[in-house]
Amino acid sequence: MDIRAMAQSARKAARQLAVMGTKEKNTILEAMAIALGEHKEDIFKANALDVESGKENGLSSAMIDRLIINEARLSSMQDGLRTMISLSDPVGEVENGWKLENGIHASKVRVPIGVIGMIYESRPNVTVDASGLALKSGNSIILRGGKEALETNKALSQILNEAGIQAGLPKGAVQLISDTDRALVKDLVTMDDLVDVIIPRGGQGLKKAIVSQASVPVIITGAGVCHVYVDKAANLEQALPIIENAKIQRPGVCNAIETLLIHEGVNTKWIESTVNTLQEKGVEVVGCEKLSTIVSSVTPATDEDWATEYLSLKLSIRIVSDLDMAMDHIETYGTRHSESILTEDINTAEKFLNGVDAAAVYVNSSTRFTDGSVFGFGGEIGISTQKLHARGPMGLQALTTTKFILRGQGHIRS
Amino acid sequence: MDIRAMAQSARKAARQLAVMGTKEKNTILEAMAIALGEHKEDIFKANALDVESGKENGLSSAMIDRLIINEARLSSMQDGLRTMISLSDPVGEVENGWKLENGIHASKVRVPIGVIGMIYESRPNVTVDASGLALKSGNSIILRGGKEALETNKALSQILNEAGIQAGLPKGAVQLISDTDRALVKDLVTMDDLVDVIIPRGGQGLKKAIVSQASVPVIITGAGVCHVYVDKAANLEQALPIIENAKIQRPGVCNAIETLLIHEGVNTKWIESTVNTLQEKGVEVVGCEKLSTIVSSVTPATDEDWATEYLSLKLSIRIVSDLDMAMDHIETYGTRHSESILTEDINTAEKFLNGVDAAAVYVNSSTRFTDGSVFGFGGEIGISTQKLHARGPMGLQALTTTKFILRGQGHIRS
Repeated sequence: MDIRAMAQSARKAARQLAVMGTKEKNTILEAMAIALGEHKEDIFKANALDVESGKENGLSSAMIDRLIINEARLSSMQDGLRTMISLSDPVGEVENGWKLENGIHASKVRVPIGVIGMIYESRPNVTVDASGLALKSGNSIILRGGKEALETNKALSQILNEAGIQAGLPKGAVQLISDTDRALVKDLVTMDDLVDVIIPRGGQGLKKAIVSQASVPVIITGAGVCHVYVDKAANLEQALPIIENAKIQRPGVCNAIETLLIHEGVNTKWIESTVNTLQEKGVEVVGCEKLSTIVSSVTPATDEDWATEYLSLKLSIRIVSDLDMAMDHIETYGTRHSESILTEDINTAEKFLNGVDAAAVYVNSSTRFTDGSVFGFGGEIGISTQKLHARGPMGLQALTTTKFILRGQGHIRS
Repeated sequence: MDIRAMAQSARKAARQLAVMGTKEKNTILEAMAIALGEHKEDIFKANALDVESGKENGLSSAMIDRLIINEARLSSMQDGLRTMISLSDPVGEVENGWKLENGIHASKVRVPIGVIGMIYESRPNVTVDASGLALKSGNSIILRGGKEALETNKALSQILNEAGIQAGLPKGAVQLISDTDRALVKDLVTMDDLVDVIIPRGGQGLKKAIVSQASVPVIITGAGVCHVYVDKAANLEQALPIIENAKIQRPGVCNAIETLLIHEGVNTKWIESTVNTLQEKGVEVVGCEKLSTIVSSVTPATDEDWATEYLSLKLSIRIVSDLDMAMDHIETYGTRHSESILTEDINTAEKFLNGVDAAAVYVNSSTRFTDGSVFGFGGEIGISTQKLHARGPMGLQALTTTKFILRGQGHIRS
């Protein structure tokens, strides 16, 4: 597979996409949505092959579940594309404009990034979502999905391309690397003359490997060691539902919490009953020494626990002596994703909101809202946990950059 | 030198800087500016040592010139710090705010990036400029200057720190790596748990080495293979002054042009006289075959010429058959920095402005205006030629990121 030729063709397509009108892009998105429905049997067939070999290769049932495309999931992919049609096109937005001292008219305009490399694991809906978001924001995309979903991704990409190209999509705008050779990933992430950004989605191992290899800029997404901090001035009636929601409602996602911090001044009976309730609901609780003096049934937490993204029904709990200790803990072990304080004291809340360094900082709320759809971005290509370019849920705007346009009348610099 | 300890202390300082008021930061900047004046003899003495060993080591006179700090340059560093006082503080600016469907109040607020690593060559004014910009935007900075300027940088950094800390600067906010061991650069650019961004300023070799080593995100600045394209509908009276300005006024900077593209329909007499004028003014001209049929005195340009940032009085010229060929040339050989079209045809101008992918795109103007001060940003830490995070001149805002603040009243996700 000639990955350099793929990237060159992506760059060529990107030049066409950059000047394509919103209406034309929406027409292509609609054609893609229709085609997914028309060819659903092909998709199910390809998907069945992946599921079958996944089972043969001993994938966990959770992994198999993430792989499966059924009628409902297919239709949600179609809905996704149609939502993108309804979103406003960020390309061409004028961020600001002014006149330079010398009279040149300047403006800062949103433009597509160019060529996006997307490297992801299992979930095949990413193939459709990422292709649609890239197209709507005027970018080419090179997709490299997990080998578990290869047949499904091939089918999806072929359908998107056939219908898309017929509706005006430039060739090379949406491409799938269908060769599972790992060396190709290295090639992709080091073509800094042709690829503008790499977005990896998947486990920490995948991301670390990419960051250490890449010369193309990388946006790190979805690392979520998130916390809820129960202050001594918390409304304890609100607290338990929030903790349950943040931990239990969907433990496998990055905006769920892994650690609960509790001020030592909080009623010990409440602490005890909270731990008991969580345990009854199937949560494995580990905790600091202080916690075990309050609730004897709790296993001691190790230093590793505080730094671990369980992504499962496991929670570490630490009793802290004050706000500073809570904030220090979050600074040391958090991944700067989503952090929440529960307090009715406005000064404590403000200190937390200002002092905690994370993509999303909450007061009196579950952390589960850090999500492009919930934030009103109409979807997301990932949740950035780094600070450059985009932070938090990345919608269409995060897939654009800006350029300065300067209109002179024979201006020279003196 | 324990570079990890330096980075930890920088991160600690960054937490304090993030919540520091604008007034306090301005007080520190003023104290720094005063101290530079008070200790100027120490600076000149240290600088003399660098200049002396530079001469011993055979540095070019241009390099020596860049190294020298005299009264005028010292005072311009002081002015720079005072300009930063007058700039508005980006930290705390609310980008936008809205209410989520569930009633949570959301806002997107500008916050400092955190810890900046700055790696640069020779010019010691960067030590002062970068420290001031980092401070005003609430960031810690770790400086790694060139070994040619080591004594000067040590003196500057010591003066900034002594005066700064007395005025309230947190320890660790401004640090200089005073050990010239190259291995320390690798350590700095791979501490992605402590350092948030690396900004290299210097030659292409330095930048390539850093990009290939770094796991910390890097912002590439100042690569400038820029073009002026003279369209067939250009105002030729405006054209020569613009070309001279873009090439000759200051050939060693990144927003000067390296290549001139000319539409084949442009009057050949004008082309001839332009080349002659440039040659008379000391510009070495190389060109494509077509050009040599018009002006015989021109040496043939190689493929390498088109891709070279001369940074000197050398210019390559290519005759192109149309706008598309000009844009293809820029796409192939340009570094996406600054590109200008000279034309009186509004449709041609719009096609160029929309179709050319660069940080700054001009019509009927020299490219020399791509500069933070000229753009009104009150200075710059560099000119980004990559697309992520910041593009073009990087002022204070480019040294910040955002965070989402969400205020609920017991909200949970259903």
